[in-house]
Amino acid sequence: MFRPQIKVFDCTIRDGGLINNHKFELRLVREVYKALSAAGVDYMEVGYKNSKKLFSEKEYGKWKFCEDEDILKVIEGIESKTKVSVMVDVGRVDVNEIKPANDSPVKMIRVASYIKEIDKAIFLANHFTDKGYETTINIMAISKALDNELTEALNQLEKECKANVVYVVDSNGSLYQESIEFLVKKFKSILKSKEIGIHTHNNQQLAFGNTIEAIIHNANFIDATVYGIGRGAGNCPLELLIGFLKNPKFDIRPILDLISKEFIPLGKEIEWGYFIPYAITGMLDEHPRAAIELRSSDRKDDYRKFYESLTEPGAAGID
Amino acid sequence: MFRPQIKVFDCTIRDGGLINNHKFELRLVREVYKALSAAGVDYMEVGYKNSKKLFSEKEYGKWKFCEDEDILKVIEGIESKTKVSVMVDVGRVDVNEIKPANDSPVKMIRVASYIKEIDKAIFLANHFTDKGYETTINIMAISKALDNELTEALNQLEKECKANVVYVVDSNGSLYQESIEFLVKKFKSILKSKEIGIHTHNNQQLAFGNTIEAIIHNANFIDATVYGIGRGAGNCPLELLIGFLKNPKFDIRPILDLISKEFIPLGKEIEWGYFIPYAITGMLDEHPRAAIELRSSDRKDDYRKFYESLTEPGAAGID
Repeated sequence: MFRPQIKVFDCTIRDGGLINNHKFELRLVREVYKALSAAGVDYMEVGYKNSKKLFSEKEYGKWKFCEDEDILKVIEGIESKTKVSVMVDVGRVDVNEIKPANDSPVKMIRVASYIKEIDKAIFLANHFTDKGYETTINIMAISKALDNELTEALNQLEKECKANVVYVVDSNGSLYQESIEFLVKKFKSILKSKEIGIHTHNNQQLAFGNTIEAIIHNANFIDATVYGIGRGAGNCPLELLIGFLKNPKFDIRPILDLISKEFIPLGKEIEWGYFIPYAITGMLDEHPRAAIELRSSDRKDDYRKFYESLTEPGAAGID
Repeated sequence: MFRPQIKVFDCTIRDGGLINNHKFELRLVREVYKALSAAGVDYMEVGYKNSKKLFSEKEYGKWKFCEDEDILKVIEGIESKTKVSVMVDVGRVDVNEIKPANDSPVKMIRVASYIKEIDKAIFLANHFTDKGYETTINIMAISKALDNELTEALNQLEKECKANVVYVVDSNGSLYQESIEFLVKKFKSILKSKEIGIHTHNNQQLAFGNTIEAIIHNANFIDATVYGIGRGAGNCPLELLIGFLKNPKFDIRPILDLISKEFIPLGKEIEWGYFIPYAITGMLDEHPRAAIELRSSDRKDDYRKFYESLTEPGAAGID
């Protein structure tokens, strides 16, 4: 029996864009949109809505900015019920650049925020809601949140924020399923008027398992990416999620084709997935940036030294 | 706080041997034994104890037969508390070829069995226990077991079998954590005098997550392999398991070195891990053999056709 409230949210191009500075070619983005539409996926996130005043168009691809005209080129001519989403980071968006939803191909705006910036995130989400968008707040680095600060932030979200969904985001890929259960239950108990979302990272090969755990405890907005693409170890693989969900509206076959034709070749150009440095930052509950740096160096397979550099006295994050 | 009863059981060479007909060179097997010993791993399984009357030494490597003299070559000169195990399949072992434990470097013999062969498995386990070995029964293909037959088999094991451990084996890599919870609890409720073991496969990237789930529900014999090596999608990665367990006797660093030096190069010679055909047999709860066959053909990345061949009316396992 399936739960009709569950929404499958694809962030292939958005989280995958963190690997290549959002330089996916339009053709690929259209192929992804086409396949997701045929598969019955509810949302597709194409990138970030960053201000061009803050980031250079020379350094970053189109999907760092997600101009409406570029999104129109993605979707035109493709029959679809899949809604387009973009993400904004607190402090990197100029709200004056965001048109009302009625004038835009974007249907949802997700606000990524650390706990400490929750006031700014609420301002943004309310602003976008007032402009007619569906909105979410994605609380990043949740494994590092102090419980009292989290409780306060959730209470504030429930009272002041118009976003329909609040996400648990395991940025470090460090959480085991017991903590996912704890967090999703905590979110649900405070955020009585909202849906809970889940976004996992695959550092410890737990992205899919933790996603199932969140679904069991009633998270209904479920992030995934094609073939698990995403920064570092990547995310919950969409094909596995669709294989797991019972709703007959989903069809895995267009996703299988997309992986065969596009993502197997892509995997030879850019790297994501399970590699030991990501596993190490995951088990140590550290941000993957040191692991990403290591993987692009000539020491990329020197795991012991990397582990020792993170665990010796005085190492980052260790007192 | 750690649970001292938990035993980490490495089956790198045994399950990995299913990829290359057990043809690992002695040097590699010794490096694995050395690293596991330094890491504090409790058991190492080196292969199968098959009768040479049934399998050809030309076709298979040493670790298909595990002669005591070959095992002595693995362990000699290495300081270690790691116990050596071998596996036997019902119907493929000649019990007369097994010496008493006191005359052998082997400390444990594990009996792999389907439910329907449980009587033969009990005979074997009791025979080996009487010869002085620690023994286990590993119930394979548990996802296909009818509940009434499973109940009967478990009752029989509790009454008649001298093995100290009975394993839940997710041969198809098809189980989600709710079923792992159900099965481990069921095993525990009937097998009151025995420990429960868990052996997972990684078809759906759930091997580690399901292993944690089994540990939560009090499984104490925990199978894993270095870098997740094993037939098809492989097994629970030992490095992740050691990162998760709290017992200070474990040291992850020798395993990290072993992966850097041996398993990264090995992964370029033989294939294991997450590939879509294994994910498909996992989600369809089928044995991986069709996927393994596909991966060694020139259609190895034609996922849609493979999926359709397994799901069309009249396909294997579909009525």
